[in-house]
Amino acid sequence: MVVLLLTPRSDQAELWRRLLSAALDGIDFRVHPNIGDPAHIDAVLAWKPPHGVLATLSRLKLICSLGMGVDHLLADPLLPQDVPIARLVDPNMIEQMSEYVLYAALHFHRGFDVYQRFQSERRWEELPLPHTAMRRIGIMGLGAIGTDCARRLAGLGFSVRGWSRTPKALKGVRSFSGRHQLAEFLGETDILVSVLPLTRQTARIVDARLFAELPPGASFINVARGELVVEDDLLAALDCGRLAGAMLDVTVSEPLAAASPLWAHPKVRITPHIAGLTNPVTAVEPIAENLRRLRAGLPLRDLVDRIRGY
Amino acid sequence: MVVLLLTPRSDQAELWRRLLSAALDGIDFRVHPNIGDPAHIDAVLAWKPPHGVLATLSRLKLICSLGMGVDHLLADPLLPQDVPIARLVDPNMIEQMSEYVLYAALHFHRGFDVYQRFQSERRWEELPLPHTAMRRIGIMGLGAIGTDCARRLAGLGFSVRGWSRTPKALKGVRSFSGRHQLAEFLGETDILVSVLPLTRQTARIVDARLFAELPPGASFINVARGELVVEDDLLAALDCGRLAGAMLDVTVSEPLAAASPLWAHPKVRITPHIAGLTNPVTAVEPIAENLRRLRAGLPLRDLVDRIRGY
Repeated sequence: MVVLLLTPRSDQAELWRRLLSAALDGIDFRVHPNIGDPAHIDAVLAWKPPHGVLATLSRLKLICSLGMGVDHLLADPLLPQDVPIARLVDPNMIEQMSEYVLYAALHFHRGFDVYQRFQSERRWEELPLPHTAMRRIGIMGLGAIGTDCARRLAGLGFSVRGWSRTPKALKGVRSFSGRHQLAEFLGETDILVSVLPLTRQTARIVDARLFAELPPGASFINVARGELVVEDDLLAALDCGRLAGAMLDVTVSEPLAAASPLWAHPKVRITPHIAGLTNPVTAVEPIAENLRRLRAGLPLRDLVDRIRGY
Repeated sequence: MVVLLLTPRSDQAELWRRLLSAALDGIDFRVHPNIGDPAHIDAVLAWKPPHGVLATLSRLKLICSLGMGVDHLLADPLLPQDVPIARLVDPNMIEQMSEYVLYAALHFHRGFDVYQRFQSERRWEELPLPHTAMRRIGIMGLGAIGTDCARRLAGLGFSVRGWSRTPKALKGVRSFSGRHQLAEFLGETDILVSVLPLTRQTARIVDARLFAELPPGASFINVARGELVVEDDLLAALDCGRLAGAMLDVTVSEPLAAASPLWAHPKVRITPHIAGLTNPVTAVEPIAENLRRLRAGLPLRDLVDRIRGY
């Protein structure tokens, strides 16, 4: 079986080769751009592949995403239509994402943003603290990540609700679904967490209209994709006080341009897309499992529905 | 039964009166300095009482601390020797303390301190991220708060160990105890959390010698009492790089003096003693329960061992 690694992170190529060879016998592992004969490639491990490359692989039977989202693959206009795509579902990455979301939720819940401003003013002053059970956290997207975040936040005692395409039944989490329930969901959300996949339906969903539905003084956390957000609307919502703060792990363009007003905005915390990092050590197993199934002709796991977009 | 409220937080007096009267029949509730006849006071709810006041209450049968620690009471040289003292053990406060510790641990674990510096430099750069199970958190003090913190941190997947006066058996938490195991405990602690009671034995325990036992680049979190720490030694440990950062909810003098070098130190985060706030709404029940027991002649709960100091 010939497997091609196709990622700008060339520093991890040797690690992938070692791990995949240990997990699977008889792998011919190649690293883009040293493809050899394109007609020999059976499967690809891909992160942000240059558009058109996948179309040249005439025998391709599986595309494994190296990220949990697959928008980076579906954006390729020449993407082969009939090759199955698998998302990466790595429990270790999900745990990392939840750690980030817990941190960011506590950041706003306990006023650590305000206390940091107080510190810069050498001001020793206590803020009112609502009971944790009174703090309403709304999670947009209840897939593997959103579900894990919801469970952990509910475990801390927060009042948790979720919004998703279709209704979900999660213990201790109030479920909202579809566009018709979005306003109701937002109206009772103090801390909004975005873990949505980026699709045609969700692009730019976080806009001025959405912010206007939140209670005044709400906070926003984005660990999904920058393109979900209209950044000018976000800045306006922060400046008019509708939003008290935002913590963003993702931005429309990455790396974030030095000229972006997000960098220096006093109400914005930026991290460089690190909420969930693909670690080959833990990611290799779900990928190797799919390659084994492919070789054995068994049904593949974590397949993407291209119509749905994730 | 005559109950006296003795606290600098006079703004909460009416709330205490209302809550305590609702929880207990036949309470004669007084607020210092309007004591009436000192010989009539049966019980006191106290936070940082002026030294000597408790000694004037000749019929006093119980001192209820309005904080989880009782060092503020034991510091009174005229404290009546034969009156029982009850700590405040409020599950809501313990939950708050754990929230703070989780936040602070994630802060250092995920490098949010470094990322904030990166943001100020408009720098989009990923840090290496050790697996959560590889991150060793050491908790000094395994009472009600330390135990809850340990349980929640272990639940997130951290490698958790605890150090206490006497050995403790907590599931998933390696236990160290006594001075003879302190160095061993510190040697395998990346993030040190102090939730110790302040006693003659623990005062200034966090000093240069202690920091020298930690692995280089460790972090320090103090949610207990400022007097546990030799602040000059803490600053020296931060400046020489032994410590990567500190998050302090408590300081030797509170409010922290405007001239303190802690305020503007780039590796220090300060909050104004808010990790666990006494909320009369939830604190009233354990206190009322003790007053009921006192009236009924039943054994009291959460009593302090004055020799032990907590």
